[in-house]
Amino acid sequence: MELLDGLRASKAIKEELKLEVAQLATEGKKIPHLAAILVGNNGASETYVGAKVKACNEIGFKSTLIRLEDDISEFKLLSEVEALNNDPDVDGILVQLPLPKHIADEKVINAIHPSKDVDGFHPISVGRLVQGLPAFVPATPYGIMLLLEHYQVNTKGMHAVVVGRSNIVGRPMSILLSGNSNPGNCTVTLCHSQTKDLAGWCRSADIIVAALGRPEFIQGDMVKEGAIVIDVGITRVADASKKSGFALKGDVHFASVSPKCSYITPVPGGVGPMTIAALMKNTFRACTENN
Amino acid sequence: MELLDGLRASKAIKEELKLEVAQLATEGKKIPHLAAILVGNNGASETYVGAKVKACNEIGFKSTLIRLEDDISEFKLLSEVEALNNDPDVDGILVQLPLPKHIADEKVINAIHPSKDVDGFHPISVGRLVQGLPAFVPATPYGIMLLLEHYQVNTKGMHAVVVGRSNIVGRPMSILLSGNSNPGNCTVTLCHSQTKDLAGWCRSADIIVAALGRPEFIQGDMVKEGAIVIDVGITRVADASKKSGFALKGDVHFASVSPKCSYITPVPGGVGPMTIAALMKNTFRACTENN
Repeated sequence: MELLDGLRASKAIKEELKLEVAQLATEGKKIPHLAAILVGNNGASETYVGAKVKACNEIGFKSTLIRLEDDISEFKLLSEVEALNNDPDVDGILVQLPLPKHIADEKVINAIHPSKDVDGFHPISVGRLVQGLPAFVPATPYGIMLLLEHYQVNTKGMHAVVVGRSNIVGRPMSILLSGNSNPGNCTVTLCHSQTKDLAGWCRSADIIVAALGRPEFIQGDMVKEGAIVIDVGITRVADASKKSGFALKGDVHFASVSPKCSYITPVPGGVGPMTIAALMKNTFRACTENN
Repeated sequence: MELLDGLRASKAIKEELKLEVAQLATEGKKIPHLAAILVGNNGASETYVGAKVKACNEIGFKSTLIRLEDDISEFKLLSEVEALNNDPDVDGILVQLPLPKHIADEKVINAIHPSKDVDGFHPISVGRLVQGLPAFVPATPYGIMLLLEHYQVNTKGMHAVVVGRSNIVGRPMSILLSGNSNPGNCTVTLCHSQTKDLAGWCRSADIIVAALGRPEFIQGDMVKEGAIVIDVGITRVADASKKSGFALKGDVHFASVSPKCSYITPVPGGVGPMTIAALMKNTFRACTENN
């Protein structure tokens, strides 16, 4: 069993980007600039945005964090997005989700100019991804593809079972793995809440991507020998033994599953860090394509 | 075995639209207007566009057919599309594919305003479809969904095997069948040229959608008892016994497959007519949404 170490792979990607940014600077070219909008004071959102800004600093990207009160009007938020769309120095825009209930996520995401949509949530980005055109791929599925690439896993002809059909993970993951690319070229089965015999599907898989958000759902007896297991889940579970009062659990029961795997991602330290690396890759691309 | 009769179902849909158009007229509202651009003199394209214009006439839609020489410049074609975008009387625009080689399909399709993209090929339409938002769904997959709906086939929890990952059929079909809808809610496996043991996949399927473009590829021994088989293929095969010199063959070997099926589409008269009905539904929607 080999660990697909997201910390290691993301570090390598960020090192590479750092060199590329230095090169841009040497050539007098524009440095990538990511602008993030954070509405309200959600603890998890603070952590995620903080990690993104930190990654920008490490690599040498410029970053701007715009903090807005959680009673901001939808109109005002849309104006903030519009200002970033029109700011030629800003290459990538992300609006940290979830937004307060009085604001329609969809409206805000659709307001981001597609050329700056580094989160890849705009319908145009999704459509281009499906059509196999160059596109900003959402951070989680893109990060998983980068991780497989980093470990040179040849997925061609494998049977991949993706568990979960969300717009931001399961669905795009199924599209990427079934595409004519490497990693990719898998026969992909997309499973969800209406799937019969989910355990049977998992047992038949060469690759399992678990993105259902149910802690330790995938158990050892649901995985075949030699499978590759990608754990997208990350749920806080109460744990009195921890100083924080909680432990982070993936969708995979690591202790029983990992001995059977050829490759497996840990939680934390697997998919999570890769999402940041993927966002940085998207921001770099937005900068070099638009300048 | 029951035949999924596309002629019958499309007739019913067109009759319904006819009544709805008459209702619009009675209310003094705008009548749907489809504009089609046909470049050059490709025989099959002539036939397809002709069938679309005929359907408009039957239903009471307005239609405009713009014929352009096959040496038209890309710029000139884009100007034609732009003129239709700006024409408030035109609700839906389609550019019949394939285009001559000196013109980039993608550029022309992306030039169609998304609100008039009744073929559903614009990345925004594709992205909205993936995200489960109201969208113009491409005619072939949409037609198949309408056919299943017409025959009230309950697909929930079924295993669907889609053979072929094209942007206009296989890929959107896999997305629709795996969506949280009815028809839909299937566990979907998308198979393609890199799939191992395709016959085995087909044998395990409750629903097979054959969209690989290989005449009579799916044989009786590749289908389980009670399966639902949707045949998207339509290939001209030389046949001296026919006056035309060719016969139309689907991707399914009807004689050996049909006795095992609960439902099956014939070729011709199955999916084909449904694509026209689906286009008409999209055009109707474009009209009522934009007026």
